[in-house]
Amino acid sequence: LTRETADLSGVLPSFGDVERAAARLNRWSVRTPLLEAHKLGVRLGYRLFVKAECLQRTGSFKFRGAFNRLSAMSEAERRRGVVAFSSGNHAQGVACAAQLLGVGAAIVMPADAPHIKIENTRGYGAEVVLYDRFTESREDIADGLVAERGATLIRPFDDALIVAGQGTTAMEAIEDAAAIGISFDVLAAPASGGGLIAGCALAGAAMSPKTRVYTVEPAGLDDHARSLRAGHRLGHAPEAQSICDALQATMPGEITFAINRELLAGGLVVSDDEVRDAMRVAFAELKLVLEPSGAAALAAALQGRIPGANSAVCVIASGGNVDAAFFAEVLDS
Amino acid sequence: LTRETADLSGVLPSFGDVERAAARLNRWSVRTPLLEAHKLGVRLGYRLFVKAECLQRTGSFKFRGAFNRLSAMSEAERRRGVVAFSSGNHAQGVACAAQLLGVGAAIVMPADAPHIKIENTRGYGAEVVLYDRFTESREDIADGLVAERGATLIRPFDDALIVAGQGTTAMEAIEDAAAIGISFDVLAAPASGGGLIAGCALAGAAMSPKTRVYTVEPAGLDDHARSLRAGHRLGHAPEAQSICDALQATMPGEITFAINRELLAGGLVVSDDEVRDAMRVAFAELKLVLEPSGAAALAAALQGRIPGANSAVCVIASGGNVDAAFFAEVLDS
Repeated sequence: LTRETADLSGVLPSFGDVERAAARLNRWSVRTPLLEAHKLGVRLGYRLFVKAECLQRTGSFKFRGAFNRLSAMSEAERRRGVVAFSSGNHAQGVACAAQLLGVGAAIVMPADAPHIKIENTRGYGAEVVLYDRFTESREDIADGLVAERGATLIRPFDDALIVAGQGTTAMEAIEDAAAIGISFDVLAAPASGGGLIAGCALAGAAMSPKTRVYTVEPAGLDDHARSLRAGHRLGHAPEAQSICDALQATMPGEITFAINRELLAGGLVVSDDEVRDAMRVAFAELKLVLEPSGAAALAAALQGRIPGANSAVCVIASGGNVDAAFFAEVLDS
Repeated sequence: LTRETADLSGVLPSFGDVERAAARLNRWSVRTPLLEAHKLGVRLGYRLFVKAECLQRTGSFKFRGAFNRLSAMSEAERRRGVVAFSSGNHAQGVACAAQLLGVGAAIVMPADAPHIKIENTRGYGAEVVLYDRFTESREDIADGLVAERGATLIRPFDDALIVAGQGTTAMEAIEDAAAIGISFDVLAAPASGGGLIAGCALAGAAMSPKTRVYTVEPAGLDDHARSLRAGHRLGHAPEAQSICDALQATMPGEITFAINRELLAGGLVVSDDEVRDAMRVAFAELKLVLEPSGAAALAAALQGRIPGANSAVCVIASGGNVDAAFFAEVLDS
C-alpha cells in the first residue's frame, strides 16, 4: 500500500468481506441475470455480457451494500435505527434493507427532490426528513439525528461493508460466466464515489486476476479517470453537468480510491449523447430499462472504447430508476 | 380424450416432449429470470412472480419452440431448409434458430410490414420473401417454397415440437419457484394460437398439478376464453382489434386446443388500456420493456382478475418487441 492509504489499512475491505456479504445477501438480493447481448457482440467482435443490475431490488445495485451494512449491525444498533442522506438510489437501497431487517430508517432528502423518489422511499417504510437545499446542510441534519437518536449513519460508498456488498455484483457475474466457460477480458462499471467499482475490483482480483477492471464516467464528471492517472484523488469541476444523475459525487472516496488505485486498469469516459444511445440500445436489443448512469458502461462498449476487449467483456448495467417522461424523451430523440 | 381430439392422439405432445425440449434448448436459450415483483405483491396480497421471457433470444418465447422444432430435423431435412410466414416474433424465432443450427430459412412477410421487423429477420441471416397482403396469399407462397425446395414449413403453434419447446418456459419457472420453496396457485400466460399456454399446461400438470393455468387475451380477441367455455373451438370476430399485435390468431389451434381444453382452468380477458397500464408498471417497477402482448398476463394480475390467487402467482411476460415510438407514447399517456 502506498503512503496515502497506509492509515486506511485497518478499514479496507478484502475479498473475504465480499464473500461474507454474498452469504448475508443470499436469498435477500436478486441474483440478477448475466445476459449475453448476442447481436451487439457480433457487431463488436467479442462476446458482450450485461449484468442486469437494474433488476435488483429497488432498481439498482445500492441495495446490496445497504443490506450488507445493516445486516452487520448489532441488535442494540439496529434498535437505534439508521440515517442516510441521498435523493436517489442509495436512499431506496437503505430504506428497503431497513424495512426487510426491521430497522427504523430516516432518510434526509431535499424538499424539492422529485416527488416519485420521496414517495418510493416512503413506500419502503422510511421516515423522510426534508430539508431546504439552499439554506440547510443535509450533513448537519443527519448528524443531528445521529446524535439525538444514537442512530448509525449509512454512508453511500466510503464504508468497507458497503464496498463489500457492491462487490457481490461482480462476484456473481464472474461465477455465472465461469459456469459457461467464459472469463472476461474486461469488466467495466460506472463510478460515482467508487464503491461499486472497488467492490468489483476486489472480486475480480481474487476470482479472475487476468480481467482488467475499468470505471466509466460521464465527460466532465470523470474524477476517477483523472485521479487514476494522477495517482491521487482529484475532484471534478463543480459546474460540470450530466444526465447521469447517480454519478455526481464530486471526488472518489478515501476507502474506495485506496482500493481502486491499486486494482483498476484505468478510467473511461462517455458523453451524454453516447449514454442516450446506450439507453436506446438497451431498450431495443436487451429489453431492459436503464437509467442514464446505468447505461454508461454499455455506452463505452458500444463506442468501441473498451481497451483489451478481445473475447469477452462484462458491463454492469447498474440501475434502472428513470422517470417515464425522460425515458420517453430519450426514445423519441 | 374427447371425440374432437381423438384423431390427434398420435401427435399430441406429452410432458416428456417438454423435458426433451429442455435438453435440446440447454445453453442455447436463455434461462430467463423468474423475478419477484415485491411491491406489487404487497399491494395484491400474494407473491407475484414474473417470468421475464422478454429477455429471451429474439425478445420473445418464440425462440424456444422454433429451436426445438429445428433441432429435431434430420440432416437431410436441414439441408433443404425451412419456411415460415409471420410478420412478428415467430419470424425472428425461426430465423435465429435456423442461423444457430446452420439451416437456411425463408420467411414470408408482408411487403408493408414494419421495416424494423424485416431488418431484424434479415439480421438473423434469413431470406425474406415479401408479398402483397392485398393480392397474394402467404400460405400459397410458403407452399410454393416448400414444394420447390423440399423445405419444411415451420408452423407458429399447431405443432407438437413447437408446443413442447414453449412449455420449457413454465418448466423453468416452476423449477425456480420450487428452489425457493414456492408453488404457484396460478400460472397465467397470453394466448394467440395457444402454443405457449398449451406447453405451459403440460409442464404444470406434470410438475405442479395444483397450479391452475389460465390464458389471458385482449377483449375482442378472446377466442380461447370463449372456446374453453363452449368446449369446442370458436373464432373471434374478424373486425376485432387490439394493440396486442402478437395475439391476433383468429382461432385456437387444433393441437393446442386439444391440450388446453383438458388442462386449462379458464380464460381471462383484459382491455387495451389495462395492457398499457401494465406496460407502464413493468417499466417503473420491474425495469422491463414489454410489448403489449407480453404485458397481458401482468395486466390481469394488476386488475385483480386472477381467480384463486392466494399465496403465489406466476405471470409470463412473453415478449418485448415493441417500437420505440409506440412505447414512448404509452409512457406519456
